[in-house]
Amino acid sequence: MTLELEIICVGNELLIGKTLNTNAHWIGKQATNLGANVKRLTVVQDIVDEIATIICETLERKPQLIITTGGLGPTFDDKTLEGIAKALNRKLEINPKALAMVKQKCAEYAQKRNMPDMVEMTPQRTKMAKIPEKTDPVQNPIGSAPGIKVKVKDTLIFALPGVPTEMEAIFTQTIEPLIKQLAGDNLFFEKSLFVDGMPESNLAPLIDKVMADVQGVYIKSHVYVPTRNVITKNRPHIEVHLTIRTQQKEKPMEKLACAIKQLSSLVDANGGTPSPSD
Amino acid sequence: MTLELEIICVGNELLIGKTLNTNAHWIGKQATNLGANVKRLTVVQDIVDEIATIICETLERKPQLIITTGGLGPTFDDKTLEGIAKALNRKLEINPKALAMVKQKCAEYAQKRNMPDMVEMTPQRTKMAKIPEKTDPVQNPIGSAPGIKVKVKDTLIFALPGVPTEMEAIFTQTIEPLIKQLAGDNLFFEKSLFVDGMPESNLAPLIDKVMADVQGVYIKSHVYVPTRNVITKNRPHIEVHLTIRTQQKEKPMEKLACAIKQLSSLVDANGGTPSPSD
Repeated sequence: MTLELEIICVGNELLIGKTLNTNAHWIGKQATNLGANVKRLTVVQDIVDEIATIICETLERKPQLIITTGGLGPTFDDKTLEGIAKALNRKLEINPKALAMVKQKCAEYAQKRNMPDMVEMTPQRTKMAKIPEKTDPVQNPIGSAPGIKVKVKDTLIFALPGVPTEMEAIFTQTIEPLIKQLAGDNLFFEKSLFVDGMPESNLAPLIDKVMADVQGVYIKSHVYVPTRNVITKNRPHIEVHLTIRTQQKEKPMEKLACAIKQLSSLVDANGGTPSPSD
Repeated sequence: MTLELEIICVGNELLIGKTLNTNAHWIGKQATNLGANVKRLTVVQDIVDEIATIICETLERKPQLIITTGGLGPTFDDKTLEGIAKALNRKLEINPKALAMVKQKCAEYAQKRNMPDMVEMTPQRTKMAKIPEKTDPVQNPIGSAPGIKVKVKDTLIFALPGVPTEMEAIFTQTIEPLIKQLAGDNLFFEKSLFVDGMPESNLAPLIDKVMADVQGVYIKSHVYVPTRNVITKNRPHIEVHLTIRTQQKEKPMEKLACAIKQLSSLVDANGGTPSPSD
């Protein structure tokens, strides 16, 4: 059974087209390569009720893992923990471990920048240690806002900061080993074949044929166009992306190679030009 | 009342970290600048039931507008129209207008590339004209797959292709005028102030003060870090993003300028360095 994961990103900036959501892209790539099946991504505004609602909705689908990004910082608009607390019907409370983590980061900052005032626990700094009751803070190796980890029935929720380096550091340190363990032997493998000189509608029946012949391989075609992707040829340039989720012992790379070989022959026989990637 | 919009992107490639979701970013930016309130973005896999489910869930929230991207093409994995049909409990049927659009694009392609076979309506090409009954096809000025438009109670659903140039062309031609009309005078205005030399937790109470003083202005801070963003200074570099949704007659730019001036003074008085953008 594959490990099902959902990603929830909190932040107006992701919805108004200010910030490109590289966090979801990064998590999607890492988690998939570690064997997780990323089922859904939702981006919501910095509104407590919106966050609470999406947490409840996602829990109802019972993924094994939920990762949220954003909204853990010291400013008024950082509302993810309040949203999670509301969803779980738990109080927000100052967690002693989380407070110790924030204090340590402030002390380091104070010393590094020679800003002695930074050791003072203002309401804004204390806010970062206010987490839902009965949840665990997760050490942030880079920034001052800790993440949190909370198990709800069979689902484990991680709330990570939105600052990419901080999110990545916590993911790598805490979540990566967990996904490896939960996903077990089921891994994800991929290969690409580029096709020129034929439209996608002519490629489609060839893909159907190869998918019927090489069991387990999923084949998806992507049309690239000159403006947003740097391809200058005056014709459709299609990337055919072949993937498989299986165990090493099922020889996934051999299956992908077989599918690419068969598809290349078919493309060639139908007037197209196949070029395998490396 | 603001025009509420939800975006749904369909495509495994967006969840496995293969393709960065620039479509959602682009639509979010355009729609926001035209006056829409982008409430939520959801990305789902190429699975009919997943698509049908997210369409039903989104309709329950009653946004005035839903825009989907991806899944309209000729290959087996293009399942958005099947998902919408299932959600609305309507049959998929060959729409004569849609079929004429596909035929015309194929004829153009056949002539341009000297590929006479392209005029033949294979099942894969006909598939692009199979849309839910009682819906309208929307002309795709660039590619062969038409979009669709369907009204469900008070919600208008547009399904657009995933190829960025095609999605952008249909948006600009068909959706932009509609958002302008529906959003009316309520527009979105933004300004940025950059802050150096102070941590976000010290900036937080200053933001609270300015937001209390300058009514209607929403202020959000974003911490940039050297690795993913090209900033080489060895200290936090914060972008303070000030936004307001209102009518021109409420003098939004004056309000933003006033907030920036007040915040700059406060930052300066608290040991930080403010630098307004342009």
